[in-house]
Amino acid sequence: MQIAIVLYDRFTALDAVGPYETLGRLPGAETVFVAEETGPLRNDTGNLALVADRTLAEVPNPDIIVVPGSPGPLPLAANEPLLGWLRAADAGSTWTTSVCTGSLLLGAAGLLRGRRATSHWLALEELKSFGAEPTGERVVTDGKYVTAAGVSSGIDMGLTLLGRIAGDEHAQIVQLATEYDPQPPYDAGSPGKAPARVVELLRSHAGIILT
Amino acid sequence: MQIAIVLYDRFTALDAVGPYETLGRLPGAETVFVAEETGPLRNDTGNLALVADRTLAEVPNPDIIVVPGSPGPLPLAANEPLLGWLRAADAGSTWTTSVCTGSLLLGAAGLLRGRRATSHWLALEELKSFGAEPTGERVVTDGKYVTAAGVSSGIDMGLTLLGRIAGDEHAQIVQLATEYDPQPPYDAGSPGKAPARVVELLRSHAGIILT
Repeated sequence: MQIAIVLYDRFTALDAVGPYETLGRLPGAETVFVAEETGPLRNDTGNLALVADRTLAEVPNPDIIVVPGSPGPLPLAANEPLLGWLRAADAGSTWTTSVCTGSLLLGAAGLLRGRRATSHWLALEELKSFGAEPTGERVVTDGKYVTAAGVSSGIDMGLTLLGRIAGDEHAQIVQLATEYDPQPPYDAGSPGKAPARVVELLRSHAGIILT
Repeated sequence: MQIAIVLYDRFTALDAVGPYETLGRLPGAETVFVAEETGPLRNDTGNLALVADRTLAEVPNPDIIVVPGSPGPLPLAANEPLLGWLRAADAGSTWTTSVCTGSLLLGAAGLLRGRRATSHWLALEELKSFGAEPTGERVVTDGKYVTAAGVSSGIDMGLTLLGRIAGDEHAQIVQLATEYDPQPPYDAGSPGKAPARVVELLRSHAGIILT
């Protein structure tokens, strides 16, 4: 079993590392970080780089594809080499997954037409332009496509898919190993729960506030 | 304000990236990944590398120190160059923090004597050998020392400290931006909640099961 986590310029780090630290603990699986070219890829703020160990061309047939997101309506990675690889790799994958606006990349590759899917709450409506049906759920499974909401939801997605593939007990082992017993100091993690002013600030000024 | 996140051979990736993606969104702060030498550092499974952009020597006076953990009783990083840097940097820091067994590194540097602190649940007792008082809480603040429990708890620690420094509203903005509204598919994230067999499997065979 091979898991390919796709990196590209300006990806969001936790989108990639959340599924990595959960789904990546699939027994017997090989997890590889892939990008158009090998070497360090800078994240959305530019002050963290993860290393792609293999090129997309070197990993043509992963069993599981994980696509992280990036700020902005459509990630900069929506270029033909990556979209072409996604289409070809998806043709043979067992599971094709995304976190945050990674679903927009799956959509741009034409893989979510007629599918229920999710994305970062600020990008949900964008999914419609790719023929997908956005939902407000945190983790959405439609056939072999598993999409997760914003950033941290990749941890829930990773555990969910891990349980599906390796069984509940193994997923629980990984949950306990990563001590995933969340106790956020606020209850502001979704637009329905956060104070209205916080939602509005992000709707209007996300780019300014967060960089 | 400068935030130094320490990397070393065999660190756990989410330990570093959780606080990075939350606390690292502190307005006006510069976040730098540091290590003994610059360049890629491999994580605990060896299939992910993060890049250290600066050497420890180049970052002598960070305002906030973040030390991730690593599997095993005492992380391999417990060597004199890193411990010496931790002592010196801590002398001028505003906050000194850790995730998972990163607290054992703070302890080995002599920084937790007489302090309440936490660590990964499998390593809690080890804290005593450094004169610290282990607690079962997820995030522990004692003076300027903020320690977090295992792996994923660094997200809660990062948001907690972010709120303390930048105010509740900014921390809520970051919580909503990262859509941190956790919905784990199981309730097995702490030894008190997980099935007894899962706890026992990890106590006995963590190294075998997870690598």
